[in-house]
Amino acid sequence: MKKLLLLAVCCIAISYCYAEDGYRLWLRYDKISNATIRQHYFQRLGSIHLPGNSATITLVKKELTTALSGLLANNIQFNQQGNFIVGTPSHIPEIKRYINNENLLALGSEGYMILAKKMNGNPHIIITANTDVALLYGVFNLIRLVQTNQSIDQLSITSIPKYKNRILNHWDNINRSVERGYAGISIWDWHKLPDYIDQRYIDYARANASIGINGTVLTNVNANAQFLTPVYLKKTAALADVFRPYGIKVYLTARFSAPIEIGGLKTADPLDADVQQWWKNKAKEIYQYIPDFGGFLVKANSEGQPGPQNYGRTHADGANMLADALAPFNGLVMWRAFVYDVRVQKANENFDSSSTVDHNAGDIASNDRFKQAYSEFKPLDGKFRNNVILQVKNGPIDFQPREPFSPLFGAMKATPLMMEFQVTQEYLGQATHLVFLPTLYKEILDADTYSNGKGSFVKEQLNGIAGVANIGNDRNWTGHPFHQSNWYGFGRLAWDPDLSSNTIAAEWIAQTFSNEAPFISTVTQMMLSSRETLVNYMTPLGLHHIMGNGHHYGPAPWSNNAPRADWNPVYYHKADKYGIGFNRTTSGTNALNQYAAQVRQQWEDSNSCSDEYILWFHHISWNHKMRSGKTLWEELCYRYNLGVDSVKAMQQQWNSVKKLVDEERSNQVTMLLNIQLKEAKWWRDACLSYFSSIAQLPIPPKYEQPEYSLEYYKSLQFPFAPGIGGHN
Amino acid sequence: MKKLLLLAVCCIAISYCYAEDGYRLWLRYDKISNATIRQHYFQRLGSIHLPGNSATITLVKKELTTALSGLLANNIQFNQQGNFIVGTPSHIPEIKRYINNENLLALGSEGYMILAKKMNGNPHIIITANTDVALLYGVFNLIRLVQTNQSIDQLSITSIPKYKNRILNHWDNINRSVERGYAGISIWDWHKLPDYIDQRYIDYARANASIGINGTVLTNVNANAQFLTPVYLKKTAALADVFRPYGIKVYLTARFSAPIEIGGLKTADPLDADVQQWWKNKAKEIYQYIPDFGGFLVKANSEGQPGPQNYGRTHADGANMLADALAPFNGLVMWRAFVYDVRVQKANENFDSSSTVDHNAGDIASNDRFKQAYSEFKPLDGKFRNNVILQVKNGPIDFQPREPFSPLFGAMKATPLMMEFQVTQEYLGQATHLVFLPTLYKEILDADTYSNGKGSFVKEQLNGIAGVANIGNDRNWTGHPFHQSNWYGFGRLAWDPDLSSNTIAAEWIAQTFSNEAPFISTVTQMMLSSRETLVNYMTPLGLHHIMGNGHHYGPAPWSNNAPRADWNPVYYHKADKYGIGFNRTTSGTNALNQYAAQVRQQWEDSNSCSDEYILWFHHISWNHKMRSGKTLWEELCYRYNLGVDSVKAMQQQWNSVKKLVDEERSNQVTMLLNIQLKEAKWWRDACLSYFSSIAQLPIPPKYEQPEYSLEYYKSLQFPFAPGIGGHN
Repeated sequence: MKKLLLLAVCCIAISYCYAEDGYRLWLRYDKISNATIRQHYFQRLGSIHLPGNSATITLVKKELTTALSGLLANNIQFNQQGNFIVGTPSHIPEIKRYINNENLLALGSEGYMILAKKMNGNPHIIITANTDVALLYGVFNLIRLVQTNQSIDQLSITSIPKYKNRILNHWDNINRSVERGYAGISIWDWHKLPDYIDQRYIDYARANASIGINGTVLTNVNANAQFLTPVYLKKTAALADVFRPYGIKVYLTARFSAPIEIGGLKTADPLDADVQQWWKNKAKEIYQYIPDFGGFLVKANSEGQPGPQNYGRTHADGANMLADALAPFNGLVMWRAFVYDVRVQKANENFDSSSTVDHNAGDIASNDRFKQAYSEFKPLDGKFRNNVILQVKNGPIDFQPREPFSPLFGAMKATPLMMEFQVTQEYLGQATHLVFLPTLYKEILDADTYSNGKGSFVKEQLNGIAGVANIGNDRNWTGHPFHQSNWYGFGRLAWDPDLSSNTIAAEWIAQTFSNEAPFISTVTQMMLSSRETLVNYMTPLGLHHIMGNGHHYGPAPWSNNAPRADWNPVYYHKADKYGIGFNRTTSGTNALNQYAAQVRQQWEDSNSCSDEYILWFHHISWNHKMRSGKTLWEELCYRYNLGVDSVKAMQQQWNSVKKLVDEERSNQVTMLLNIQLKEAKWWRDACLSYFSSIAQLPIPPKYEQPEYSLEYYKSLQFPFAPGIGGHN
Repeated sequence: MKKLLLLAVCCIAISYCYAEDGYRLWLRYDKISNATIRQHYFQRLGSIHLPGNSATITLVKKELTTALSGLLANNIQFNQQGNFIVGTPSHIPEIKRYINNENLLALGSEGYMILAKKMNGNPHIIITANTDVALLYGVFNLIRLVQTNQSIDQLSITSIPKYKNRILNHWDNINRSVERGYAGISIWDWHKLPDYIDQRYIDYARANASIGINGTVLTNVNANAQFLTPVYLKKTAALADVFRPYGIKVYLTARFSAPIEIGGLKTADPLDADVQQWWKNKAKEIYQYIPDFGGFLVKANSEGQPGPQNYGRTHADGANMLADALAPFNGLVMWRAFVYDVRVQKANENFDSSSTVDHNAGDIASNDRFKQAYSEFKPLDGKFRNNVILQVKNGPIDFQPREPFSPLFGAMKATPLMMEFQVTQEYLGQATHLVFLPTLYKEILDADTYSNGKGSFVKEQLNGIAGVANIGNDRNWTGHPFHQSNWYGFGRLAWDPDLSSNTIAAEWIAQTFSNEAPFISTVTQMMLSSRETLVNYMTPLGLHHIMGNGHHYGPAPWSNNAPRADWNPVYYHKADKYGIGFNRTTSGTNALNQYAAQVRQQWEDSNSCSDEYILWFHHISWNHKMRSGKTLWEELCYRYNLGVDSVKAMQQQWNSVKKLVDEERSNQVTMLLNIQLKEAKWWRDACLSYFSSIAQLPIPPKYEQPEYSLEYYKSLQFPFAPGIGGHN
C-alpha cells in the first residue's frame, strides 16, 4: 500500500513536469484540484470490495489503484467490507438480491451496470457484469466519471455495446513502416518479439479497453505472407498474450497467395482441394499458437493484391474457403469490399509503376469507380458463410473529407456488414491538421438508407466497426495531440453510435487536458467545427479525390498522369469551360441508381441536391445559381476562403485558452495550427488557381489572391512525404 | 517562483511514476533522499548570482532551476547576493580578483572553472569561463556532482576539452530510416520541419551539451544531395537555431555528385572550374541560412559513393575543392578515410546488387582490405588544405568487437586526424546486447603508435572525435536502456580521453539509475566486463568480420557469396583443415608493415603476439599451443563458452540489484539480458559448429553442445532485421 501511495503522490504531480508528453493519452490520473470533490469521491470509492484473482481482475485492481490513488491523492483500500463493489454475480451472489436476473442476462458478455444503491442501509457503488472483461469496461467508465468530475451519487448506468466487433486495423508493415501512418513507425517491434514486451503493448491494450475496443488487426491489408509463418506466429502469440486479459483479440491479414508464397503450392485457387487443405492446416496451426485468434482481414483483387478472381472465382468463393478453415475455431473472415475494376487493375498489377494511363479506365460510364464495390458484391449477397463479414468503407470512393454513405449499406440484406472508417488522416491533413472525425463518423452512421423505409439508418445495418489506426511510435502515439481524440472517438462510437460528437469531445478534453469549463467549451467548439472547416479548404461542395498522387498530401486537381484514369483528380472533378462535377444521374453514370429511391431523390436533382453533395452527383455550370444566391464559382471561392478563415478562428480560440494547459502540448498545438493555416491556404490557392484557369473566371478581388503562380503549385514534389507505399 | 516550486515538487516524484521510461537519460533530477546532503547543497547552491541575458544564459538559468529545485526539493533564488556565482569575468569583473588572468585565458572558449572560494569572508561556489557556452558546460558538471552526491566544499576544478571537434555522426536518411540504427527511426522529422520544433530537438541539445558534444552531422554519410537544396537547408537552419545556444554546430554530408544531381552540371570533377564555382556558391548559400554552419562530412569513392577518383583525381583534390568553398566561412571538411579497393568497388558500383563475386578481390596480397585506407591516404599526407580533417575509423576494417588501431594513426604526421568511433552497435549486438563501449574506445585511444617513440598514444594524434550515433525515436532514445551509456561515455571521452571507463560507468549509473552503493558497484562490474564478454562469444582471439552479410546481425562464418570477396567472412578468418587466421606478416600480406617497428614487433611473432590479436595477424594451426597451454582449437572453444557463461553472470548480477530500480526499466533489462544470452549461445554454437566442421575437430564434451545443426544455423534469414540499407 505504501508503494501505491507513492504512486499516487507522483501521479498527482507528473502533469506539471516536462514529461507531459501525451504518452498517457486520456488515461491521465492527476490529482483532482477541488478537495471537496476529491473527499466525496474517496468516501464512495476509497474502500473497494473486488473478489476474484483472474488475470483480468488483477488488471482491474491495478487500474483502480493507479487511477483512484492518483485522482483522489489518497490511499485506496481493498477489503470485503468495501462500499465500492466490483464483481460478477458469481463472485458476489449477493448482487442478485439487488439486480434482477433478466437485466443481468441482458448484459451479455460485454455489457455492465454501474449503480448507486443502498445495501444493508448504506450507500454503495456497484459495478457488475457477467464477465471479468465487462467489469474492466465498467471500471474504466467509472474512472472516466471521476476524471471528468461527474456526480456518482445517483448512478444507474446500463451499458451494452451496440456491436460485437470493435476493431482497429493497423496498416503496419513487416519492416515497421506504416502505410498512411503519420506518427512514426509501427509500435510492433517484430524484430524484438516475442522475447521483448514493450511497455507500449500494455498501455496500448489499456487505452483500447478503456474505450471498449475488443480486436486489433496487427498487419497491413496489403499483406505479407511471412506473417503466417511460425517465426511470426510466435511473435503474434506474444502480443495476443498481452492483450487477452484486456478482452482484445488479435487478427491478421491473410495474403491470398500465401499458399504459393510460403506453402509451396502452384496455385491459390480457392476451389483447389490442396489450397483449401493448406488453409485448414494453417488455421489449425495458428490456433495452436493463439487459442483465441480472431481471424483474418482480407484485401483481395484490389490495387494489385491477389485474390480469387485471379482464378476466375468470385469473392464469395475466396471468403468462404477461408471461412471454412476458420469455422472449427470460431474464427471470423472480414472481407473488404474496397475493390475496383479488376480489368483495369490487372493491366497495372504493379500499380506503383509509372506505366502509362490505361485508356480502358477512360470508359467511365461503365467503370465509374463509385459503382464498383456495389457492382461486385451486390450479386453475391447471401452467398457468404455466416462467419464472413463484408467490411465496407464509409463512402464509395476512399475516405474523402466528405462522401455520401456507400450504397452497399442497406443493399446487402443477407450479408453481415462491418463499417470501415479511417482514423488515420490520409486525406484529412495527415500529420498536421486538427480534424475531429467523430462528426464525420456520425454523419455516416446516422444516414438513412431507407432500405426498410424511413429510419433505416446505416448504424442499424452493421455487425461491427473497424477503424484504420492512426497509432505510431511517436511519444504521444498519434503525433498531433488532438489526433488522440479520433482514436478515442472511434472507440466510443463503436461501443455506442448514439453518443453525440459533443459528448465525446467534451469528455476527451477533460480527461486529456483540463476540466476547466472555459477550456472545455472553447476547445469543444474548435473540434466540432474542424471537419467542416477542412472540407471547405480542401474539397467543398462535393469535390473529392483532388489530392496529389501517391503521397495524397497536398492539392493537385490538375493531376492527369496516373497509370489509371480513376487515380486522376480530373477523373473526379471533370472541370471544363462549362462547369464542374461528376454527373452520376441517369444522364451520367447513373451511380445514384445504387441507392434506395428516397435517397436517390434527395440527390438526383441539381436544384434540390444539398450543397454538400452537389458535385458528387452533378456536372453543373460555373454560373449555376446556388441556394445562397451566389453562382457556383462565387460559392466555390467563398467556401475555400471560409475554410481558411475558420482555421484563423481556431488559432484565436486556442490562443484564448492555451495558458490553461501545460507548456509542451500548448506549444505543440500552436505550431501545428500555424502549419494547418499555411496548408489550408495552399489548398485554397492551388485549387482556385487551377479551377480559375479552367473556368476562365477570376478569383473575386475581395478575397486574398494566391501567393504563387499555378505553375509553382504544380511544380511541388513530395517524394519523402510520410505514409507513402510500403505495399509489401 | 511558485511555478518553479511546483516543477520541483513533481520532478521529485516523477521517477516513481510509470513514466520512468528512460526519456530523461542521465539528466534525471529527482529529489536526493538524504535530507542532510540536500540541505547542505541548498546552503551552497540555493541562492544564485547569474548575470547576463543571452540565449545561453537563459538556458543556464532554466537548467539550474529544474535541476536544483528537483534534486534539492527546494525553492531556488536568483539574486545578486547569491553565494553561488555563475558568470564570465566580463559579467562579474570581481572574479578577476580571485582568479589570475593567465588561468582564465588558458580556459579558451570552452573550458571552465568550478571553485569553492571564500569571497569577502564567506564561502562561495564559483563557476566561471570566457564564454556563456563554457558556463553551461560548467553548470552541467556541477549538476553532475550534485546528482552523484559528491562533496562540493573543496571544489577546485579546471576543465578544458582535449579536442576542439566533438561530433556525433547521424547515419540518418531523408526518409527517416537510420542506417545501422536500432532504436526506431530518425529523430529528425524532416517533413514537419522547419515549422514544427519537436521537444526532442531541445532535449537532444541539452543531453549533448551536458557531456560536451559541440557538433552534429545530421545526415547519413551515404548522402542525399536533396539535403543541399533550399527546401532542406531551411529545415536544417531551424535545427541549427535550436542547437546554437547549446554550443552545438550543425554539419551536413556533401554528396560529391551534387553538382550533377541538383546543380545541372555534366560533371563533378573537382578540377572543373564550374564545379568549383558551384560549390563556392552552394557554400555561400548555406551560410546565408546557417551563419555558423560547421561544414561537410564526406564519404567519397567508398561502397559505391561518388568521389574524385571517378574523374581520375585524388582524395586531396576532392577534399581541397570543398575546403576552398568553405574556407571563407571558416567551415570544416571532414573527409573519411573509410575507403577500400576502388578497382574492385568500381566493378560493383551498386553494391546492393547481388552480382557475382569479383575475383579481382581474390588477389588478397595486394588487396588486403586492412591495408587500403593507409595505401590510399599515406601518400597524400600533407597535401590537404588546413581546414580539412581526415576522419579515420578506429580500426583498419570496420568497427569490429576488437580491432588493432588503424595504422593511419601516427602515420599522417602532416594531416589533422579525427577518430571515428561507432556508438551504434552495428557489429556489437545491435538492439539487444548490453555492451559498454568506453572500454573499447579507451583501448584505442591509449594505444601507443610509437610514431614519435614510446608514449605516442593515439589520443595524442587527434584533432577531434566523431561518434556514429545510436539515437532514434524510441521513447528512451537508444532502445536498450544501457545503450544510453555509450552516448554518454563517447561524449565524456571526447572531452577528456584520460577519464577511466570505471569513472564514466559509475557516474552514469548514479545519474541514470541509482546512487545506492551496491547498485553502482555491481552494475559497474557488469558494464566494465561486458565488451570482453561480447568479444568472447562473437569474435575471440582476433577473429573479425564473421557476421551475416547485409544485416550484420548474426553469425555467418561460412558466408562466401557476397559480390566482393572482402565482404565474405571466409576472406577474413581463412579457416582451413590446417588452421585459422589471416597472415598479415611478411610471409602474408605484410599489412603489419604499415605500423611503426615497435608496434609491428609486438604482433609479428605468433609466439609472442597476444591472444587478443593473434588471428588478426597470423594463420596458425588448430594445434598451435596458446599461452594457456591449450591448443588453439581448445582455446577457441573455451573462449566462446566463457563468453556465454559471462552473460549468465551478468544476469545474476542484474537480478541481485534490479529491485533497487523502477519496475519498467528493471524488466526491460531483464528481458534484454535473456535475449543476449540466447544470441550469445547462437554465436557460440553457429561459429563452433562451422569451425569444427572445417578443423574436423569435435567440440569438447565438457562444453554445452550446439542446440541445432550447422545446416540450421546456415538456413537462418533476417530480411527484416533493423538498420539495413537505406543507401540513399
